[in-house]
Amino acid sequence: MKVLILGGGGMVGQKLAQQIALHGLGGQTADITLHDIAFPPAPIAGSKQVVGSITDAGVAGELAKTKPDVIFHLASIVSGEAEADFDKGWAVNMHPTWALLEGLRAEHEADSNYRPRLVFTSSIAVFGGPYPDKINDEFLSAPQTSYGAQKSICEAMISDFSRKGFVDGISIRLPTICVRPGKPNAAASSFFSGIIREPLNGQEAILPVSDSTRHWHASPRSATGFLTHAATLDTELLQGRRALNLPGVSCTVAEQIDALRDLAGNDVVKLIKPQPDPVIEKIVEGWPRDFDPKRAIALGFMAESSFKEIVQVYLDDEM
Amino acid sequence: MKVLILGGGGMVGQKLAQQIALHGLGGQTADITLHDIAFPPAPIAGSKQVVGSITDAGVAGELAKTKPDVIFHLASIVSGEAEADFDKGWAVNMHPTWALLEGLRAEHEADSNYRPRLVFTSSIAVFGGPYPDKINDEFLSAPQTSYGAQKSICEAMISDFSRKGFVDGISIRLPTICVRPGKPNAAASSFFSGIIREPLNGQEAILPVSDSTRHWHASPRSATGFLTHAATLDTELLQGRRALNLPGVSCTVAEQIDALRDLAGNDVVKLIKPQPDPVIEKIVEGWPRDFDPKRAIALGFMAESSFKEIVQVYLDDEM
Repeated sequence: MKVLILGGGGMVGQKLAQQIALHGLGGQTADITLHDIAFPPAPIAGSKQVVGSITDAGVAGELAKTKPDVIFHLASIVSGEAEADFDKGWAVNMHPTWALLEGLRAEHEADSNYRPRLVFTSSIAVFGGPYPDKINDEFLSAPQTSYGAQKSICEAMISDFSRKGFVDGISIRLPTICVRPGKPNAAASSFFSGIIREPLNGQEAILPVSDSTRHWHASPRSATGFLTHAATLDTELLQGRRALNLPGVSCTVAEQIDALRDLAGNDVVKLIKPQPDPVIEKIVEGWPRDFDPKRAIALGFMAESSFKEIVQVYLDDEM
Repeated sequence: MKVLILGGGGMVGQKLAQQIALHGLGGQTADITLHDIAFPPAPIAGSKQVVGSITDAGVAGELAKTKPDVIFHLASIVSGEAEADFDKGWAVNMHPTWALLEGLRAEHEADSNYRPRLVFTSSIAVFGGPYPDKINDEFLSAPQTSYGAQKSICEAMISDFSRKGFVDGISIRLPTICVRPGKPNAAASSFFSGIIREPLNGQEAILPVSDSTRHWHASPRSATGFLTHAATLDTELLQGRRALNLPGVSCTVAEQIDALRDLAGNDVVKLIKPQPDPVIEKIVEGWPRDFDPKRAIALGFMAESSFKEIVQVYLDDEM
């Protein structure tokens, strides 16, 4: 089985490649190609790296010509960057998806047996307030960021190309992935990981929002599980609605901190330094806080059931 | 005030131009330009016609350079054609909207005072079943046609360009417009008008679906009213959700026929010939049947309150 991971150099792409290299996908071994503009220094055994930009003319079509059986489309710039650089956001987060779909459709039309599974990482950023207490599976997408608009548009394209039978697509709206390993990044959500990761590594972490802030999380391990499950499930079960809210853990920052205290003690928690940042507070205020993802759960998607489990995954997988 | 109507040669575009030529827009007289690939023989007094295709490279940008104060974007191929010709559907119903938005944004960036009102005719085709009894203002878009996907994507683009302040856009999801004057067209919804219009003109009409079929209607006069209202309302009131379900009349085909009987008598009704067409039945089965459009009503959008009123509008305006 040929697997292509777009955005394969990122944190989730790398974990996914590792998982598939070790365990295969859907019971088959996989020939894995990772595509990204840059990669970490150590390549993943059993995978091939291709350096390039999917924004370059012809690149998506060339990748389609390799006729992967499964394409994981994770390539994207983050919310903050798409908001700061409008042109770049659309150039990276929207137009290449169209080019990829057209490339895959051309392969399908040349060979009607070719109809690849396309797994797209969408985001809870497709939603915009005001919200109900829990967002259900029928709640509208009304994004309040360019990133969310771009994700929502890609979902609609993928659904329509799938409905027509050119590809077999599914869009999964990832919760905020927490605890991210490594360094803080430019995302406004970076602190959700930082307040756990930095203290566990003996460093101070800034908490820029009130500890009553509620948000929606899943671990990197769950993210990998979402992706491999989306790659192998029977898409007939989606009944034409090919964008899914995923399971996750809804908790407040105070509950995140309690979980850290339970697992690592109060001295570690003391490394969290509250320092309200009105800019970040305003962004985070606009984000979804809780979901009732019945469909995804019925389809077998699984996440952690508490934030303590999420911290434990970080301890197990990263430390 | 400069008004540009894209798709100005169509039935709704022509009625809108007539209305604005006679009564102005928002209390101002208007310099009206109509753009379309073709026009009816008799031009509308007080308007300028430009023949061309918005799918041609550079055309949307050229139109933006004329810096209209209000743009009505009605240009589109119908649902049936977009379904039959996949390339043409995306080429007409999606890509030119992007080019138009980029053109308007370039004008805004050259002159920050320029931020035109953009009124986009979306459609209830952005929805896909299964449906609740009444679709409320928070129900998801899950289109089951390419036409619906294209409309939904244009909505998301227009919302984001508006959120960024480049344009001041609003997307209105028109009900099926009924009773359309003139000839039947290729749309699967054509019979909803045909079963009223043809008998009133002494001709037989085919009814291809069961008379228990429920659908969502508004008159051409309401369509004009929706458009002029959307062009003049305070978009701050939209609070960032710039795509709106509009008011209309939900009724069954049997109720349509009762209304015709009330106004025109039983001999006219006898000209309706039931002749079930499984293809049309299947398409129509997938369409929305009823709405609870609270937001649009609160914002002052108005439609008829019964199908009898809709038939009366046809009698008043067309006969």
